[in-house]
Amino acid sequence: MALHKATMQYRVPYAETDQMGVVYYAHYLVYFERIRGVLLRDIGLPYGELERKGFALPVIEAHVEYKKPARYEDDLQIAGWLAWAQGVRCRVDCEVRRDGVLLAEGYTVHACIDRASGKPTRILPEFAPFCAQDAPAH
Amino acid sequence: MALHKATMQYRVPYAETDQMGVVYYAHYLVYFERIRGVLLRDIGLPYGELERKGFALPVIEAHVEYKKPARYEDDLQIAGWLAWAQGVRCRVDCEVRRDGVLLAEGYTVHACIDRASGKPTRILPEFAPFCAQDAPAH
Amino acid sequence: MALHKATMQYRVPYAETDQMGVVYYAHYLVYFERIRGVLLRDIGLPYGELERKGFALPVIEAHVEYKKPARYEDDLQIAGWLAWAQGVRCRVDCEVRRDGVLLAEGYTVHACIDRASGKPTRILPEFAPFCAQDAPAH
Amino acid sequence: MALHKATMQYRVPYAETDQMGVVYYAHYLVYFERIRGVLLRDIGLPYGELERKGFALPVIEAHVEYKKPARYEDDLQIAGWLAWAQGVRCRVDCEVRRDGVLLAEGYTVHACIDRASGKPTRILPEFAPFCAQDAPAH
Repeated sequence: MALHKATMQYRVPYAETDQMGVVYYAHYLVYFERIRGVLLRDIGLPYGELERKGFALPVIEAHVEYKKPARYEDDLQIAGWLAWAQGVRCRVDCEVRRDGVLLAEGYTVHACIDRASGKPTRILPEFAPFCAQDAPAH
Repeated sequence: MALHKATMQYRVPYAETDQMGVVYYAHYLVYFERIRGVLLRDIGLPYGELERKGFALPVIEAHVEYKKPARYEDDLQIAGWLAWAQGVRCRVDCEVRRDGVLLAEGYTVHACIDRASGKPTRILPEFAPFCAQDAPAH
Repeated sequence: MALHKATMQYRVPYAETDQMGVVYYAHYLVYFERIRGVLLRDIGLPYGELERKGFALPVIEAHVEYKKPARYEDDLQIAGWLAWAQGVRCRVDCEVRRDGVLLAEGYTVHACIDRASGKPTRILPEFAPFCAQDAPAH
Repeated sequence: MALHKATMQYRVPYAETDQMGVVYYAHYLVYFERIRGVLLRDIGLPYGELERKGFALPVIEAHVEYKKPARYEDDLQIAGWLAWAQGVRCRVDCEVRRDGVLLAEGYTVHACIDRASGKPTRILPEFAPFCAQDAPAH
């Protein structure tokens, strides 16, 4: 196990605020996708390349816990890492922080799909060395 | 307990598809918000009015399970209902279907906030008669 | 010339407001797409079917003038119609109103593309009878 | 006249693609907002600070011309600059490029509003030194 934690900075645009003056809750799922993109590039498997190789990793479950609001112009730290990859699935855990303070955390579970057949297929073995856990915790 | 199930039809725009040809996963959280709006209007407490009365119901937890993809021009049935309302919180459960077939389901947990103080406050008693459960199941 | 004006009602979700308490300006382009979808269904050429027949109508120009803000829970009237269709292009004009009052207006210009070749192709003749004008005004 | 051209790099997420496999047209208005944010920070007037000082710069007109599609994972160059600032208005011009090739260009016109009164007010004099033109070209 050699967990790789991908990180990025992200400046909140006005577009993502709502009339409560905070980032609208759905945008965190896009933040999670942005950091998954960084994570996959970091481990040498950019998602676009993965698609061109005939795979897809659709989200089958998403979960977010909102601790404190993010606001316009915040310079967020977004982090993400592979929690586990087993059978035909994997889970990516994510965190959003501002100045080190946790604003939101959550995860997405993905199925590995063979695009030609549309069927689930064994998760890419390249993921295993980067996982935080051996197996699903639940 | 007299559960009220709010429902609406929703036509998927091109804006919400992604290059996999399906609705991008974050939009389901907006679908959940749309049906919560209908639900609150149905039970006589439109969210805008609730804000004008000094309350807010920020999302503190969101969960979605994706079963089958929704697609462009789909005429979706979105349903939502109060699962429970207790202490300073409530949970709304949601489903997205096409021709009766379940595409996604999930829930949001909300804190009830007094906007003047920014502090949690007892959930509106008007919610209780419309809840599916007496108390949180977990 | 027998202009067809498509119309729809649209309830503004919290998702589309920003911290100024009004609908964020980019969402109007999605409203324009929603009404184009209605317009094409009305004239018997749903966009999805048009794609399956091998055509695409990508936007090559978009313009919006914002007169008054739309707000959360507003029940908007969105209208759209074909301004002209000529050569390989067409223009759709759109308006957004609340209680009859104009909030925003604008247009999109589309190229007609043959999806197989990726090349511009003559605009569908089915559009002509529904246009407001004979030819581009500019 | 000492034009300041703000620039940023931006990685396209899956969220912003559509089923045509390209960036959906409304997102360019968010790109324009992102670069306006950079521009205002560059000239020492971050938009959040401007709001705290009692001003707002709502968009009253937006225009985009789409030349070539942007795609998933593209590392875009977004540029923006003040075209003019005169009376109670200003215009910001924007470009989106990939590897130097122009994908889209356009502009937004803003009114300067006094937030307390809600009335138009003289555009901030701090903008003048950074404008590309003396006065509106039209």
